[in-house]
Amino acid sequence: MNHIDTVMRQSLAAFAAYRKTTPAQRASFLEQIATQLASAREQLTAKAQEESHLPLPRLNGELTRTINQLKMFARLITEGSWVEAVIDKGDKDTRKMLLPVGPVVVFGASNFPFAFSTAGGDTASALAAGATVVVKGHSAHAGTSEAVFAAMQEAARLYRMPEHTVQHVLGPGSTAGKALVTHPAAAGVGFTGSFSGGTALLRYAAERERPIPVFAEMSSINPVVLLPDTLHKNTAALAKMLGASITLGMGQFCTNPGLLVALESPVLEDFLQQLGEAVSEAAKHEMLHEGIADNYSAGLAAMLEQKGIAVVRSGTGTLAKVSAGTFLQNPHFKDEVFGPFSLMVACADKTEMTAVLQSLQGQLTATIMATDSDLAAHADILELQTSLAGRVILNDAPTGVEVNSSMVHGGPFPATSDARFTSVGASAIKRWVRPVCFQGFPDAWLPEELKDANPRGIWRSVNNEWSKQ
Amino acid sequence: MNHIDTVMRQSLAAFAAYRKTTPAQRASFLEQIATQLASAREQLTAKAQEESHLPLPRLNGELTRTINQLKMFARLITEGSWVEAVIDKGDKDTRKMLLPVGPVVVFGASNFPFAFSTAGGDTASALAAGATVVVKGHSAHAGTSEAVFAAMQEAARLYRMPEHTVQHVLGPGSTAGKALVTHPAAAGVGFTGSFSGGTALLRYAAERERPIPVFAEMSSINPVVLLPDTLHKNTAALAKMLGASITLGMGQFCTNPGLLVALESPVLEDFLQQLGEAVSEAAKHEMLHEGIADNYSAGLAAMLEQKGIAVVRSGTGTLAKVSAGTFLQNPHFKDEVFGPFSLMVACADKTEMTAVLQSLQGQLTATIMATDSDLAAHADILELQTSLAGRVILNDAPTGVEVNSSMVHGGPFPATSDARFTSVGASAIKRWVRPVCFQGFPDAWLPEELKDANPRGIWRSVNNEWSKQ
Repeated sequence: MNHIDTVMRQSLAAFAAYRKTTPAQRASFLEQIATQLASAREQLTAKAQEESHLPLPRLNGELTRTINQLKMFARLITEGSWVEAVIDKGDKDTRKMLLPVGPVVVFGASNFPFAFSTAGGDTASALAAGATVVVKGHSAHAGTSEAVFAAMQEAARLYRMPEHTVQHVLGPGSTAGKALVTHPAAAGVGFTGSFSGGTALLRYAAERERPIPVFAEMSSINPVVLLPDTLHKNTAALAKMLGASITLGMGQFCTNPGLLVALESPVLEDFLQQLGEAVSEAAKHEMLHEGIADNYSAGLAAMLEQKGIAVVRSGTGTLAKVSAGTFLQNPHFKDEVFGPFSLMVACADKTEMTAVLQSLQGQLTATIMATDSDLAAHADILELQTSLAGRVILNDAPTGVEVNSSMVHGGPFPATSDARFTSVGASAIKRWVRPVCFQGFPDAWLPEELKDANPRGIWRSVNNEWSKQ
Repeated sequence: MNHIDTVMRQSLAAFAAYRKTTPAQRASFLEQIATQLASAREQLTAKAQEESHLPLPRLNGELTRTINQLKMFARLITEGSWVEAVIDKGDKDTRKMLLPVGPVVVFGASNFPFAFSTAGGDTASALAAGATVVVKGHSAHAGTSEAVFAAMQEAARLYRMPEHTVQHVLGPGSTAGKALVTHPAAAGVGFTGSFSGGTALLRYAAERERPIPVFAEMSSINPVVLLPDTLHKNTAALAKMLGASITLGMGQFCTNPGLLVALESPVLEDFLQQLGEAVSEAAKHEMLHEGIADNYSAGLAAMLEQKGIAVVRSGTGTLAKVSAGTFLQNPHFKDEVFGPFSLMVACADKTEMTAVLQSLQGQLTATIMATDSDLAAHADILELQTSLAGRVILNDAPTGVEVNSSMVHGGPFPATSDARFTSVGASAIKRWVRPVCFQGFPDAWLPEELKDANPRGIWRSVNNEWSKQ
């Protein structure tokens, strides 16, 4: 792995220069990457379609999202308040702000060739923070990754970023990935993928002499609780909404609703028939690549072999049902089946419903379908769902992640390796920084963000008062 | 370890209720703990003196600091903006804030029986965040710990906090500590102590099925660079300041300046003589306990056995000197000797000085003694020091940690296990929370902090604009 060693040393050398670029310079760089991606749209989406089998409209949408993410981070660092500047002029003069940690390793995701890959959210947030980036392109769309990297290189060249600010390597995660994560120069890791892939990176990181943060977004079955009053009143609408969510993009989303929870009732049977129809008869398209398709077939077969499970309907996607009692006795029912599958857990009563939710591990999302009277009667269910996930959703499908300042795409283990951070939205930048306190520094030697006159015009806490002055 | 299992289950049960207390209720509880500690001052400091050998004035100061920390966190949560409320009213309505993670295990520190122990910063910040706490009292001051815990219990009773909001256990770290950290109910760990103790906790945590954050503040030699112009102009003042810092509290501070770095010169020899006198002739008192005294003797002996080291002067404390060339060849020179010891690394030139600093691991503090002309000539040294530590200090001693909003008492490994957080100051509360995003919630079901009308009157980001409205 001499090549990886060279790449990581180059990244560390580039960091020494890149960390000194101004926010304005980095914002221009990010904007230019967005421009390069936009002008290469046709070529990029065609290549991605060839490699990923994803439909063109979806890929166009994803590329637009990627471009908008780059612009969002450019705006964030141009505005500048994200550095959490705090100034205390007491007996001692102490001032702190967030500074970049060093070279970041980003692993491309198989299911998002643009938005969670080469120039995706991990890369954009790291570059915005002032960290250099080494992208490990995903082998399932290596050509797309190389084309996106070329666009980034061109932007770096145009804006005279330090050489090796962004680099790109290919190769299997078990060798190239391990060499990257265990390299002494690495200061952080971003990953979106499987539980086995994410935990492998955590193991590699644990072999290091100096620990580094690994942000792995891994596995979630995204429980949806359907409370009785709304199930009765909105049977058809709920079946339509959830059917579309379960089969969206052939179920290949981290936020796919893989587990449904409701109380046994005649209405539930009616709902399951309608949902089964929607799930089985949704438009079908190829899955991302053969590996994912094979995993889905194998995972689905293993799930359907479990004792006590009943298939409600199978076609494009599959809907199955199990009683809460059976569910609670067999941990395999909580396995993520990555694809268009969902399992309804039918509970005899509220006690069983509570036990089912209490048995779940950490999740990216937890959804509650409820009327006002449902909520009034089931506040404890809302609390339970909140304790499980990074995002709690009321009366909407979990698929569809807004890219904004309040998004949390994260959650307790095993949804992610670190529930305190998000990989989507503006706060994703906080993964690549650490606070540094400057004590007793005259103005001239302080970073711009901490100077008395506030030349960056950012929001700061000065003697515990927030101000832009 | 049936007792530990019971304690952790009780803590989890208490968390379900305690997390629902209002900030005002928690603030009153913290204020009351402060009041209880203040009224038991004489008894507490007497017990602590008996157990720790620390002088009464120091213990009184530390207790005052502990009381003030409790009050600071009460003010912080009363004001309320610390929860980082962010609201986006776009296509989807998403709102996020920080919520407590669950039961926190706090390990008392040997060298701070009050401020970093039972009702110290870890406990105060966790209780403020809404987390329940299990304190593992330090065996070196078990009686003090029990007395402080009794004061906390009385405050909990008076303010009707849920039973078991704070609990207290004693016993060795290798059994009781391990049982606490590996218990499934534990959601976070706070520790201040040795590198071996901290890394043992990290190993215990790595055995867990579900990872939890461990905040261990462990080991730091706090390098102080003395640049030539100031060394020449302020020889006596620097010797006096650093001599006092090295011997303060018999050197038993995490921020003790254990490593000095300067360029060889006749002035340096003059400075070393003056500093040696200050270090060797400082007032002597007993060390904290026999274990620490023995460790200091053994560590000092091992250090002085290294080839190429020369003792400048030895008495109450010890000052030694080594050339940069020798220092760079032997990693033992970077070992922390916890006590009144400091090592001057004399560099032939700037290249050697840079190499010495580049060879160091993460630190709590990094100090630069410099005039304006020093800084102008050595900006790269300032950059290097900044990359090493959580707090960078200009022209002041590293001992003495302000408890305020801009303090960073933390730093890259092995100074701490997580450079992104601080164990001192208001931001210490951020260790015990995670962000949760609420999507599509009507006002009635949102936490107060996220309701449209902002009933808590806190600073929030609403559609990317900061406001209190």
